Amino acid sequence: MTAKFIPWKTLDRRTVLDAQPYLSVEMRTIELPDGRTIPNWAWVATPDYINVVAVTAGGEFICFRQTKYAIEGTSLAVVGGYIEPGEDPLAAAQRELREETGYRAERWTSLGSYAVDGNRGAGVAHFFLAQGAEKVTEIDADDLEEQELLLLPHAEVKTALMKHEFKVLAWAAIVSLALESLEGNPVT
Amino acid sequence: MTAKFIPWKTLDRRTVLDAQPYLSVEMRTIELPDGRTIPNWAWVATPDYINVVAVTAGGEFICFRQTKYAIEGTSLAVVGGYIEPGEDPLAAAQRELREETGYRAERWTSLGSYAVDGNRGAGVAHFFLAQGAEKVTEIDADDLEEQELLLLPHAEVKTALMKHEFKVLAWAAIVSLALESLEGNPVT
Repeated sequence: MTAKFIPWKTLDRRTVLDAQPYLSVEMRTIELPDGRTIPNWAWVATPDYINVVAVTAGGEFICFRQTKYAIEGTSLAVVGGYIEPGEDPLAAAQRELREETGYRAERWTSLGSYAVDGNRGAGVAHFFLAQGAEKVTEIDADDLEEQELLLLPHAEVKTALMKHEFKVLAWAAIVSLALESLEGNPVT
Repeated sequence: MTAKFIPWKTLDRRTVLDAQPYLSVEMRTIELPDGRTIPNWAWVATPDYINVVAVTAGGEFICFRQTKYAIEGTSLAVVGGYIEPGEDPLAAAQRELREETGYRAERWTSLGSYAVDGNRGAGVAHFFLAQGAEKVTEIDADDLEEQELLLLPHAEVKTALMKHEFKVLAWAAIVSLALESLEGNPVT
């Protein structure tokens, strides 16, 4: 980071909406590097979450077809969920894989951690690739959504991604990052 | 969509925070397919936005190094911005490319539209790949962030993505989707 990039300062913050544990909103007063202040910068606090692209020893991707309140119809999806208070992101990822699918995996790779909204926060998304997944127990999920577990071959996941069938931003992001990581393409 | 996937019903909505144009929050009453109701489902309304991965005729990717309030230090970034009221997503993408970089591009491809938060909304992200970009005018941006324009070769963008140097979810998502789309890798 070069010296010219000066971080914004937070001068003040007040909670204007408290709907914990899922959402709270602060109005913050921000000072820009040039001295200007912004008196009402909305900051959204929502729980950090994890998503997992899990691939079986046979190379199949563990996906779901499911509904989600913010989208129309159904979407392809991957394992995901909120991190519990004090929980490590990787532990949350392993827990969600087990609860939602009954699988566990030995090889775990971080695909990165990302601010969901660069301006307003809205939590951090932690992404993991889990390889060598095998079924070890029954599904024990408490999700509100109806969902159907699917084991999809690599080529089918790729085609679905390019046809925009993963309709939630985090799902499209992690599937795309996982494919880039797995394919390790040389650049032509 | 098979018949078993029944959409959730919205029974009631009331605005609990109005900080337009950037944020408002509703508390909604939701009915699940099994008849249960959820009385306080937070719904976040933020503006829809666009991001653009623009590639020059010479194959360089138009990126930025910049600060962003929700992240520490700097991040690699791509063109992006809120869609203005009534504006078409593609028109917004073309406007933001011109304003932020002074480039225009002839070939535009959708990389999909995604719900930013599958539960709470938080707007829709519309992603575009712009190819054959050429500089036609000066930069005319009104962004609050300090940013430095970079023209990066494909291999460098790919390496940076895999090293998690695009730190905002939408930026990592669109760069990854653009690489997948451009590389068009056969699945091995």
